[in-house]
Amino acid sequence: MKKNIIVGQSGGPTAVINASLYGVIAEAKKRSEEVGCVYGMLNGIEGFMQDRYMNLSEELTDEELELLKLTPAAFLGSCRYKLPEDLSSGFYPMIFQKLERMNIGCFLYIGGNDSMDTVSKLSRYGNSIGSGIRFIGIPKTVDNDLVGTDHTPGYASAARYVAASVREIALDASVYQQKAVTIVEIMGRHAGWLTAAAALARKAEGDNPLLIYLPEFDFDLEQFAQDVKAALDRQPNVVVCVSEGISDRDGKFICEYDNAAQTDSFGHKMLTGSGKVLESFIRNRYGVKVRSVELNVSQRCSGMLASGVDVEEAACAGAAGVAAALGGATGMMIAFERKAGLAYELEYVPKDVNAICNKEKKFPQEWIVDEGRDVSREFLDYALPLIQGGVERKMENGLPVYLYQKDGKTVRR
Amino acid sequence: MKKNIIVGQSGGPTAVINASLYGVIAEAKKRSEEVGCVYGMLNGIEGFMQDRYMNLSEELTDEELELLKLTPAAFLGSCRYKLPEDLSSGFYPMIFQKLERMNIGCFLYIGGNDSMDTVSKLSRYGNSIGSGIRFIGIPKTVDNDLVGTDHTPGYASAARYVAASVREIALDASVYQQKAVTIVEIMGRHAGWLTAAAALARKAEGDNPLLIYLPEFDFDLEQFAQDVKAALDRQPNVVVCVSEGISDRDGKFICEYDNAAQTDSFGHKMLTGSGKVLESFIRNRYGVKVRSVELNVSQRCSGMLASGVDVEEAACAGAAGVAAALGGATGMMIAFERKAGLAYELEYVPKDVNAICNKEKKFPQEWIVDEGRDVSREFLDYALPLIQGGVERKMENGLPVYLYQKDGKTVRR
Repeated sequence: MKKNIIVGQSGGPTAVINASLYGVIAEAKKRSEEVGCVYGMLNGIEGFMQDRYMNLSEELTDEELELLKLTPAAFLGSCRYKLPEDLSSGFYPMIFQKLERMNIGCFLYIGGNDSMDTVSKLSRYGNSIGSGIRFIGIPKTVDNDLVGTDHTPGYASAARYVAASVREIALDASVYQQKAVTIVEIMGRHAGWLTAAAALARKAEGDNPLLIYLPEFDFDLEQFAQDVKAALDRQPNVVVCVSEGISDRDGKFICEYDNAAQTDSFGHKMLTGSGKVLESFIRNRYGVKVRSVELNVSQRCSGMLASGVDVEEAACAGAAGVAAALGGATGMMIAFERKAGLAYELEYVPKDVNAICNKEKKFPQEWIVDEGRDVSREFLDYALPLIQGGVERKMENGLPVYLYQKDGKTVRR
Repeated sequence: MKKNIIVGQSGGPTAVINASLYGVIAEAKKRSEEVGCVYGMLNGIEGFMQDRYMNLSEELTDEELELLKLTPAAFLGSCRYKLPEDLSSGFYPMIFQKLERMNIGCFLYIGGNDSMDTVSKLSRYGNSIGSGIRFIGIPKTVDNDLVGTDHTPGYASAARYVAASVREIALDASVYQQKAVTIVEIMGRHAGWLTAAAALARKAEGDNPLLIYLPEFDFDLEQFAQDVKAALDRQPNVVVCVSEGISDRDGKFICEYDNAAQTDSFGHKMLTGSGKVLESFIRNRYGVKVRSVELNVSQRCSGMLASGVDVEEAACAGAAGVAAALGGATGMMIAFERKAGLAYELEYVPKDVNAICNKEKKFPQEWIVDEGRDVSREFLDYALPLIQGGVERKMENGLPVYLYQKDGKTVRR
């Protein structure tokens, strides 16, 4: 008897997490002799525990499937839910009972570090009871911080968004003659991959952004003041890019430097970003015009500048997950391996998820140059192939058309 | 003897101010029997006073001209410079001497309220001395707050960016089951046109953004708290859009509710942060997850979602400016008149700039509905034709290619 597939999405949204979902459904369709239907958990494992899921094979038309591929965020909804550490917890038999009842043969989970932890635990529990269900992780995170893989689906589109936005912000900042500093705060609490992508905004060496600071390098406020001054001496319009997670040598986040002024009139502490703190610092130090721009959630959820390469790779990762599971693999994540050689080529390789989950791949120290103020040419060579190409998007009334679901039903409008 | 044209850009950048510049140059080329060359002031009238200008007819190739049309921000650089109120000031003979020396017949200035004030003053001084130089304003502002014109070039692209971004932010906000409020702060200190564009993000009635607040309606914090609570009772994920310039019945800006609100070194109140203030307020009031997103400068400088209609209209406005000046008009601004009828059609009509400058067109009270929490269907009918169509952009290395100049020389790379 044919077994069914169940797939979930977990963690923060990206521009291409739905492309991976598309890849899973499309591959399962191709293998209809081996696969029954594809179920989608609503809000990940958390929703599945509440028996919230949908039948993706039945619910989506071919046209909707194509729309799904280019819809950002997470079509199935997401969750941040950590499974019990103790594999003898009653949680596990409960989940496996549900899976058996639905005749599930493969469990695919699209997500980042924490989601791979879910795959690890379920596969280990499965092994311990001799279950035949296969558990496969499909990588996803704009942070690009998963170990064991060249890069992660979602990163490239976010990087392209950052690079294009910073190029435009630099253009915007250049229109006046007066000295001015623009500080752009970019996502990445612990890893600087996305902030580094700001270097792609330059058309030539010496272009803005003149300064780039990653969380992997100790941030020093005094040094920063000197860096900005030196940059202002070179040209009137200085664009600086900083990671939200920059911290000093004692590990204190720069966003925590904000002082008493940052209490609102209700007496509560307001949450500030590193960009705002540095904006205030530089303005008070030099009296120049300073603006800070937080790129915010659009970095991860905007489909406007989704990378064509990213979309296709994310879809392939989903398909490779189905193939690996049907081939008998379990407790694996589909990793990306870049082939040696000048032309950019990728292989999709299942790797032990236990060696991947709960770890963070930092931005390499050797790619941080100019005493922590810039990234190297090697990084550009690494990142450039990933941001190539766009996507042909369906538009209606001047705006992009996306696919939605509500309680497991596609919203058709 | 043929006369020359000089053109300048002034005020904040937009996605299409260079399309108007393109329109001026292209129209002048077509009329080479009447026009000598087109000069461009660098950094507007302020740069021109310092004899900073470039020869656009000589400097730009045809290919660069096409690139210019789709480059956001302000190619020539901009300024914020108010001309002396006193027309007997020595400033005016100085400027006119420069213009005469360059054999200028038409002076075109692309900008908003303040720039139209420049056109008004120069044309009035010109009339007073019997000068033959014609002064024409080309409208430009993302704020859409110029009177006497149906809308303003730059607004549509910014509105499209806002609508698409809010649609994606709403998608991003919908992925978790937990109650959460997302507050999006949109540009517009005094006029709510751009914030109203967030309503275009909805696919159907009842979609996010559930609440929209404009500066034209007195904002009440307690009412706001009740509005948010009612919205949260309807659905777990609430997206709220607020103008940066919302203020209470006493005229106090909501961003000033924050103790940290300061005056910058020019004596201006810092108007960043109504979103942040409301984020803090709602979090402390209800203990729910709240995030605020400031769309920031990308609203005005992003070419990613430039409206095709906007680009073409901006170019036509530039061309119409040349035509009007050559036809003998002076002291005029090229206004947009929407023809009656179902199909969207526009006429370009020169109007007395003195009746336009230094005024603000507010968002109509009758288009503010639901007791200040939403905008009407009439606004959607007004705005929808403006955001139609995109542009075919030249890409290189995965990123948009734009045109730059440095000290009057095109940067060719």
